Amino acid sequence: MTSGVEERDGRRRRGAVARRAALASAVDLGSREGLEAVTIGRLAGATSMSKSGLFAHFGSKEQLQLETIARAREIFTEEVVSRVAGDSGRQRLEALLEAWMSYMEREVFPGGCFFMAASAEWDARPGPVRDAVAAAMTAWLGLLERMVGDAALPGWRSAEQVVFELNAVGIAANWEHQLLRDERVFEKARTAFARILEGRS
Amino acid sequence: MTSGVEERDGRRRRGAVARRAALASAVDLGSREGLEAVTIGRLAGATSMSKSGLFAHFGSKEQLQLETIARAREIFTEEVVSRVAGDSGRQRLEALLEAWMSYMEREVFPGGCFFMAASAEWDARPGPVRDAVAAAMTAWLGLLERMVGDAALPGWRSAEQVVFELNAVGIAANWEHQLLRDERVFEKARTAFARILEGRS
Repeated sequence: MTSGVEERDGRRRRGAVARRAALASAVDLGSREGLEAVTIGRLAGATSMSKSGLFAHFGSKEQLQLETIARAREIFTEEVVSRVAGDSGRQRLEALLEAWMSYMEREVFPGGCFFMAASAEWDARPGPVRDAVAAAMTAWLGLLERMVGDAALPGWRSAEQVVFELNAVGIAANWEHQLLRDERVFEKARTAFARILEGRS
Repeated sequence: MTSGVEERDGRRRRGAVARRAALASAVDLGSREGLEAVTIGRLAGATSMSKSGLFAHFGSKEQLQLETIARAREIFTEEVVSRVAGDSGRQRLEALLEAWMSYMEREVFPGGCFFMAASAEWDARPGPVRDAVAAAMTAWLGLLERMVGDAALPGWRSAEQVVFELNAVGIAANWEHQLLRDERVFEKARTAFARILEGRS
């Protein structure tokens, strides 16, 4: 016999598991087809959850899209940011760049970098989804800037310029890999990173 | 009194003008909201043409999307490629890069670079639209590679690496400008181009 408390706990746990599974599908769908494809109807088709169940969890398409972005940020943090290690600022920056390349190469998101796809899709559509995508990218550029600052690269006048150039290499690697399916792009990206870190400004 | 021939010529001319106007709207819509938004229904709302008139011109949504890409390529050629001038290969490459930046800065397409938006949107959807987008980008990278070859930049082992790095800078400038609306990005992009052209590989 189960008590009322245990029943409620069980429901809550099952609810959290279902929600997490729904968001995992949403993140995959969003990275392959764009966040616009992440709707309660599409998600009902991709998971075993009913539309009404998904609606109870997320309330609206926009809320579902915002939670999808939040979940994608968690995955990016787990797969890239938390892999940073090293004794010096320089080593930690190198570890970050390598984790970022590996995240693209391994296709942690099946459609490539979730955030670059979302940026291109939403940059011209004002509203909370665009704001959430821009906030994610601003946070990434901020992290990169702090780590470039700590790395004390020789020969550069401005950390902001280094951040722009490093980020450019990563964006282009993802773009070329996804569109042209050319694996050599990661070698070119690593060569470019090394050149930037050499500090010839 | 107009002859039958003149009437037919007039109809043909009006047809060509209407088709061109429809494609101009399609290109704008595609650059702002993505090619998926370029449908005969949306275009009927954005122009004074009827759905049946548009259908007679384009036949299908996919054909409309393919013609939109072809028109966007023509505009890119007019606005970027045809502005290349200079006595030396190096000057012509510099002119190309400057025309490319200016095309992004002036927002020739209201949603930023048409092709980068289309790449991110279609890279995971096999079919003729994806193929047309990939062909456009391959042509661009090929042009860049020929011009880098002609420029005889000092100190680089591989033209392909230079092309990757130059293209990365342009992609990132468009991306950061569209998402974060930061105009300083073009100054950073020009600084990065100059550094790459200096040829410190």
